[in-house]
Amino acid sequence: MIGRINHIAIAVPDVEKAALHWRDVLGADVSTVESLPEHGVRIVFVNAPNGKVELMEPLGETSPIAMFLQRNPDGGMHHICYEVSDITAACDHLTAKGARVLGNGTPKKGAHGNPVLFLHPKDFNGTLIELEEVR
Amino acid sequence: MIGRINHIAIAVPDVEKAALHWRDVLGADVSTVESLPEHGVRIVFVNAPNGKVELMEPLGETSPIAMFLQRNPDGGMHHICYEVSDITAACDHLTAKGARVLGNGTPKKGAHGNPVLFLHPKDFNGTLIELEEVR
Repeated sequence: MIGRINHIAIAVPDVEKAALHWRDVLGADVSTVESLPEHGVRIVFVNAPNGKVELMEPLGETSPIAMFLQRNPDGGMHHICYEVSDITAACDHLTAKGARVLGNGTPKKGAHGNPVLFLHPKDFNGTLIELEEVR
Repeated sequence: MIGRINHIAIAVPDVEKAALHWRDVLGADVSTVESLPEHGVRIVFVNAPNGKVELMEPLGETSPIAMFLQRNPDGGMHHICYEVSDITAACDHLTAKGARVLGNGTPKKGAHGNPVLFLHPKDFNGTLIELEEVR
């Protein structure tokens, strides 16, 4: 079911500062900053030949990563996103297998405009897994 | 400097159980278990078309991930590994930029037989970064 690794997300307290640091110290190829107010984050892509890391800073009072940064003020690895070809079929399969889909249990529009869902980290070894439909 | 994402490592308390779960629930392509006693881990690869996740269980009393699992008994995302073409040059550059290389500050032989180093997570937003030389 799961396909390509779409991205690995890292929460950071200051995305400009983090992007400059990754660029200057690691020699990383970093994008400009994008604000996604409807998703409560400001992000920078760290592009590698075979995938990307997303550095995410909380945006707004209801940011979904605000609590994570309260617990981890320096930041930290937040989630891994896999692509699936049919998110409705994936959701049905996962639910039938007993995995818990966060929120109301159905896919919603993600940061890249595609339908996404997040799986409960307790069901996957403490790892938050996002599935994104990429047709 | 950093090149391909070589793997994302997830610490788990029971690698057989985790592998079966990732296979059955996520439909993941998982390898058989490999024991790496000299590195203190038992691992399973979760193969995706563009990269891999390594599920790691502690092996032995001095496993480098034992403390992580004490703090996170369910497991969790442990590190991200990038490939570099020349680890000595990378190490020199990183040290000159003030980044801290864990251990004695020099590369050592990693789990795949290539020279590796780990960077202090405090220097990279709470994220443990491994660099592996792949020529």
